[in-house]
Amino acid sequence: MDTIKLTPRQEEIIRLVKENPPITSEALAERLNVTRAALRPDLAILTMTGILEARPKVGYIYSKKPSYSLIYDYIRNIKVADIMSNPVVVDEGTSIYDAIVHLFLNDVGTLFVQNNGYLIGAASRKDFLKIAMGGTDIHKVPVGIIMTRMPNIVYIEKEDSAYLAAQRIIEHEVDSLPVVERAFDGSKEAFTIVGKVSKTNITRLFVKLGENG
Amino acid sequence: MDTIKLTPRQEEIIRLVKENPPITSEALAERLNVTRAALRPDLAILTMTGILEARPKVGYIYSKKPSYSLIYDYIRNIKVADIMSNPVVVDEGTSIYDAIVHLFLNDVGTLFVQNNGYLIGAASRKDFLKIAMGGTDIHKVPVGIIMTRMPNIVYIEKEDSAYLAAQRIIEHEVDSLPVVERAFDGSKEAFTIVGKVSKTNITRLFVKLGENG
Repeated sequence: MDTIKLTPRQEEIIRLVKENPPITSEALAERLNVTRAALRPDLAILTMTGILEARPKVGYIYSKKPSYSLIYDYIRNIKVADIMSNPVVVDEGTSIYDAIVHLFLNDVGTLFVQNNGYLIGAASRKDFLKIAMGGTDIHKVPVGIIMTRMPNIVYIEKEDSAYLAAQRIIEHEVDSLPVVERAFDGSKEAFTIVGKVSKTNITRLFVKLGENG
Repeated sequence: MDTIKLTPRQEEIIRLVKENPPITSEALAERLNVTRAALRPDLAILTMTGILEARPKVGYIYSKKPSYSLIYDYIRNIKVADIMSNPVVVDEGTSIYDAIVHLFLNDVGTLFVQNNGYLIGAASRKDFLKIAMGGTDIHKVPVGIIMTRMPNIVYIEKEDSAYLAAQRIIEHEVDSLPVVERAFDGSKEAFTIVGKVSKTNITRLFVKLGENG
């Protein structure tokens, strides 16, 4: 996905650096038959984008892992707090039927379940669909029976990056992460729910990144 | 989301351009008491990122809509074909029960429905959950009864951008778009399904963009 458009001179610089690492800007200028000043913008762009690495007093080397650091930095600097939305939370004793009604009324894909104000579980459309297909009486059975229970819930915190949230969503194959704050329930570590980040939030962010101003 | 780290001199250049538009590089160099050559890397970065606009023979102006064109271009250049995955397709006559089984076996959120090889509908987890809660005999009723039917399906084509796909997903509040190719069913325009793009594909792409090389 190397889509940064480089000029022919920038391509030539990369080729020279690859062939003669490390190479100083003086040597590059001489090879290209231009002044060092004329090269400066190209070198600035190539190092800012992470294609070249500038080693002081040594010269330029080709970055083994071109990080296109502008995009990389841009994406990694967006926080969960900037993109999270309101979580829909029910109590453990809520019937599966009522929980599904909450799911539809709020048009969300995942419900979070709490007890005494602390996060104890999560249930997704997939969990509900599975139970609704079986012979279970969804009016009588509480959501606590079918939910995924702590500590098996993948969560995120407000100050984490949106990138980390997206990574966890993909790695753990979930639709949504609760955004939590650490608390203590007696002497035990516990979590309160302050938000959620779903694939929808990430998709919305992606659209925002591609918007023209 | 202005997260590109600018140097104090770049910030100063932006301030000068904002206060005196349009301003030439000569005038900027004079105000900053440096040579034009020394300014060139800063001006290259500020124009490449879309913060300043260079008008030939006029000078620099502050871009009213900073587009951070690097990120913008990067994102807009990724094609649907680069990120799409395989669609799960069933025939119109498939029972709702069998359709849900397909949904689980393939671990997808949306099924696409075809007739004679052409796309005629789509059904999501949400549609299935709604019907599974009611009194319908899901073994007898076919998926064709509950699906969203063409022409009400939002679709995308392989050569469109991933950005456009994400935009349609958000705008139309769907989880997944079929990737289609135009065909003719007799004299009528019709579509064959060649892939799908979901919020999962967009989230995966976002993770890839943030990866370090």
